Amino acid sequence: MVSAEFQQYVGDNLQRFAGEIIRLASQPSVSARKEGIEECATLVETMLREIGATTKVLRMDGVAPLVYGEVKSSRSSKTLLFYNHYDVQPEEPLELWKSPPFKPEIRDGRIYGRGVSDDKGELVSRLKLVEAYMKTSGGPPCNVKFCFEGEEETGSVHLEEYVSKNSDLFKADAVVWEFGTVDLQDRPKVILGVKGMIYVEFVLKMLSQDAHSSYAAALPSAPWRLVRLLNMLKDTNERILVPGWYDGVETLAEDELSVLEGMPFDGEEFRKAYGAKEFLGGMNSDMAKKALVQRPTGNIAGIWAGYTGPGSKTVLPKEVHAKMDFRLVPHQDPADLWAKMRKYLDDNGFGDVEMQLESMEPAARTSYKDPFAQSAIKAAAKVYGTEPVVELGSPGTGPLYLFTRRYKMPSVDIGVSSEESAIHAPNENLRLDLLQKGILWIAETMELFAAS
Amino acid sequence: MVSAEFQQYVGDNLQRFAGEIIRLASQPSVSARKEGIEECATLVETMLREIGATTKVLRMDGVAPLVYGEVKSSRSSKTLLFYNHYDVQPEEPLELWKSPPFKPEIRDGRIYGRGVSDDKGELVSRLKLVEAYMKTSGGPPCNVKFCFEGEEETGSVHLEEYVSKNSDLFKADAVVWEFGTVDLQDRPKVILGVKGMIYVEFVLKMLSQDAHSSYAAALPSAPWRLVRLLNMLKDTNERILVPGWYDGVETLAEDELSVLEGMPFDGEEFRKAYGAKEFLGGMNSDMAKKALVQRPTGNIAGIWAGYTGPGSKTVLPKEVHAKMDFRLVPHQDPADLWAKMRKYLDDNGFGDVEMQLESMEPAARTSYKDPFAQSAIKAAAKVYGTEPVVELGSPGTGPLYLFTRRYKMPSVDIGVSSEESAIHAPNENLRLDLLQKGILWIAETMELFAAS
Repeated sequence: MVSAEFQQYVGDNLQRFAGEIIRLASQPSVSARKEGIEECATLVETMLREIGATTKVLRMDGVAPLVYGEVKSSRSSKTLLFYNHYDVQPEEPLELWKSPPFKPEIRDGRIYGRGVSDDKGELVSRLKLVEAYMKTSGGPPCNVKFCFEGEEETGSVHLEEYVSKNSDLFKADAVVWEFGTVDLQDRPKVILGVKGMIYVEFVLKMLSQDAHSSYAAALPSAPWRLVRLLNMLKDTNERILVPGWYDGVETLAEDELSVLEGMPFDGEEFRKAYGAKEFLGGMNSDMAKKALVQRPTGNIAGIWAGYTGPGSKTVLPKEVHAKMDFRLVPHQDPADLWAKMRKYLDDNGFGDVEMQLESMEPAARTSYKDPFAQSAIKAAAKVYGTEPVVELGSPGTGPLYLFTRRYKMPSVDIGVSSEESAIHAPNENLRLDLLQKGILWIAETMELFAAS
Repeated sequence: MVSAEFQQYVGDNLQRFAGEIIRLASQPSVSARKEGIEECATLVETMLREIGATTKVLRMDGVAPLVYGEVKSSRSSKTLLFYNHYDVQPEEPLELWKSPPFKPEIRDGRIYGRGVSDDKGELVSRLKLVEAYMKTSGGPPCNVKFCFEGEEETGSVHLEEYVSKNSDLFKADAVVWEFGTVDLQDRPKVILGVKGMIYVEFVLKMLSQDAHSSYAAALPSAPWRLVRLLNMLKDTNERILVPGWYDGVETLAEDELSVLEGMPFDGEEFRKAYGAKEFLGGMNSDMAKKALVQRPTGNIAGIWAGYTGPGSKTVLPKEVHAKMDFRLVPHQDPADLWAKMRKYLDDNGFGDVEMQLESMEPAARTSYKDPFAQSAIKAAAKVYGTEPVVELGSPGTGPLYLFTRRYKMPSVDIGVSSEESAIHAPNENLRLDLLQKGILWIAETMELFAAS
C-alpha cells in the first residue's frame, strides 16, 4: 500500500510535475516528419538521470533512438517494464489550436499542447512516480525498467529489431503500457490489450502530367479509379471484402462477453463529443461499444488529388493518394492479410496500384483474470473510490505484442489521461487532477504486484 | 487577302510581340485566388490604348473588371468581336515548373509561363494583329471589338450581367473565341463550339472534430460516405446516373457525323503525350475522338480529407471535399441538371451533403456550314498550306453561348496555341512560330469576313 509520505510528495510536487510535462512537450518530436527526434531523446535521457535511473541510449542508423532506463528495488525481485514513447503525432490542422501546439500552457486545470497526454504526459508520470519513491522510501517496491521509443506514431517499425537485439534488457514480469484513461464519468479504465493495424498508402498514377479536365472525356482518371478500388475494398456494411480477411477471428468466450457487456459505455456522450448524428451504420450504443473492442476497421485517414484550393480549377489529376489504417483483432495476422490484399487488387485489375506499407502490427490481449490485471483493477478501486471499467481491448494500436509474446508477460494500460484529452487532434490536453490520481493508481498497482 | 506589308510587319516585330506576352504574363492574375486581377485589368487597358483602341473598363462591386476596346474600320461596316480573358489558372503544383510561372522566359523557341497560351498569348495576338493593320494599312478590314474578362477560369460568373447591362456594346456579326490551336501534326484546328459545364464542390461534414482513427469502428466516416456518393453518381461505364441527365441530348446529324469522322485525330500521340496506358474504359482512338466532342463528363478535379503529409497519421477525418466538373453537350440545361442532381442526392440519403455551385454554363456550337466558319477554314488552308482540322465542338468550356445566343452570331475558335501548350498545367508554353502563323490566320479570316 502506498505510503502517506508518497501521497503527500505527489500532491506537493504536482505543479512541478506539470512543469516537467511542459518541458518535454515543448520539444517538438514529430516522427512522421522526423522532426526534433534526436533532441527529444536526449531530453528524455536527461530526465531519466534526474530521477536517479541508470540509462542507455540504443541506436540504429537513421532510426529514432530508443531510450532505456532502469531503477533497482531493494524490496522485491520482480521487475515491471514501463513502455512509453517520446514521439508525437503531427500537429495539423494548426488553425484549430487555441494555443501553439509546441508551446504548452495551463488553462483551467489542464495542460494544452501536442503530446501532453499522448504520450509525454504519461511518460513523465512514470518518471515522477519513481522519483516520489526515491524521495520517500529510497526506491520503488519492485525493479523498474523504462522503454521509451521514438517511432510509435509511425508504427514502431524498428522496435522489434531493438527488442530482439537487446532481449535481456527488456525482460520483465509485467508491462504497464503507454496510455491510461478515465472515462467521461471519471471512472478509471483498465485496458487489457490493443488492436493490431496495417497502415498503407495507396498510390495510383495514371497520367504523366495533369491534364485539362475537358480531356476527362477520353483520358483515364486516377481519382475515379481509386473510388472504384475503395468501393471494392469494403461494403456498405463496413465489411472488408478482401477474401480471408476474417479468417481466424474468434468470437468472444462467454465470460469475456459478459465483461464486455458489463463495461459501462455512455455511447450518447461519446457520440455527441464528436458531433456525430449517429453511430456508423446506425448502430446503437451497445453495438458501438462492442465494435470498438472487437470490430476490424478499414479507415481512410487521408485522401488527396488535384486542386484543393479555393474556387475552381478544371484539372484531370494525374494521380491520387489514399492513406488507410486497417485495425485488426486478435488472431488476424497482418503479414498474411497484406499478401491477401495485394492478391485481391491484382486479381481485380488493380495490379498497377502501389501499396506503400507504413507499418503493420498484430493485436495483443491479456486476460482480465490474470493476477497483474487484477492488481490494476483493485488499485483503481482504491484510488478512485469506484469500480474501474474493464476493457478487454482498446480500439487503438501499439506494439504491445512485441513484449507480451516474447516474455510471455501480462500487460495493463493504465495512466493519467482522459477521453477528453483530444489525442491526435487539436488542443490535446491533460487534466492535472488526473495526473495526480494516475500516479497513485500506478503506484498502488506496483505495490500489489511487488507483494504478489 | 493579307498584304505583303502586313506579313512583313508581323515577321519583323515577332520578338517584340513575344515581349508583350511576357509583359502581360508577368502580372499574376489568378481569379481563383482573386490575386492581381485589378492590376492585370489596368495593364490590359494600357495595352489596348497602345495599339490605338478606344477603351472602356466596365465594373461591378467585388467583381473582376471587364476591359472593353474598339477599333473602327473604314473598309467595312461589319464588326468582329474578339473574346479573351486576362485571368489565369492557379499555378500549382509549383515544384513541377522548370521556370517560375509568373516570370515567363523564352527557351528553344517557346515562351514558358502561366497564361502565355491560355489566354494571355491569345489575347496579345489579337492586339498585335490589329496593331499590324494600323501600321500597315491605317486600320483593320472590319470593325473590331475586344471583350477581355477576368473571371473565365472561375466560370465567368458575372459575364452574363456585364453583357446584359451593355448589350449594344458587344453587338457584332461574328466572334473569334478565346483559344485556337494546331494539332500535334501542326494542322490548324477550326473549333466550332464548346461544351457546357457545371462546377460543384461537394462538402460532407460528419463530425465536429477529427477523431483518433481507432474510433472508426463506431463513428461515421465522411471520406467513406463520399466514396459511396461518388459511386452512385457515375457507373463504371462513365455514365452519369442522375436520372434525366441525358434527356434532350441529340445524336449528331449524318453530315456532322461525317465531319467528325473525317477529323484527323492521332489518338496514340495524344494518349502518349499524357502517358496514359489506354484511353478511358479501353476506348479505341476513334471512340476517344468522338467522346472528346460529344460525351458529357463527370470529372473529379480535386478531392481531399484528413492527413496528407508524409508518414502516417491515424485520424478519422471530420470532413471531406470533392471538386467536380461536369461537362455538358448541346441541349443539356445546367440549371435543370443541377436541380436533378440535388434531388438525386436527397432521394438517396445524401440530403445533408452540401453542393457548392462554382459555375454553370450551357454548351454552344456553330454549324461548319456557316459562312464565317468557312472563312476560317479557307484562311487556315491558305496560311498553313494544309487543310485544317474541323472540330464540331471543343471538349472545353466557355461562356460562348452568351454571345452566340444573344446576338445570333457565329463563332470560331482559332488562335496561336498548340496541343503541347500545357494549358492549366505546369510549364504552360507558346511556340513563337505559331504566334506568327496564328496572327496571319486570324487576319486572313478577317479579310474574308469583311469581304463577304
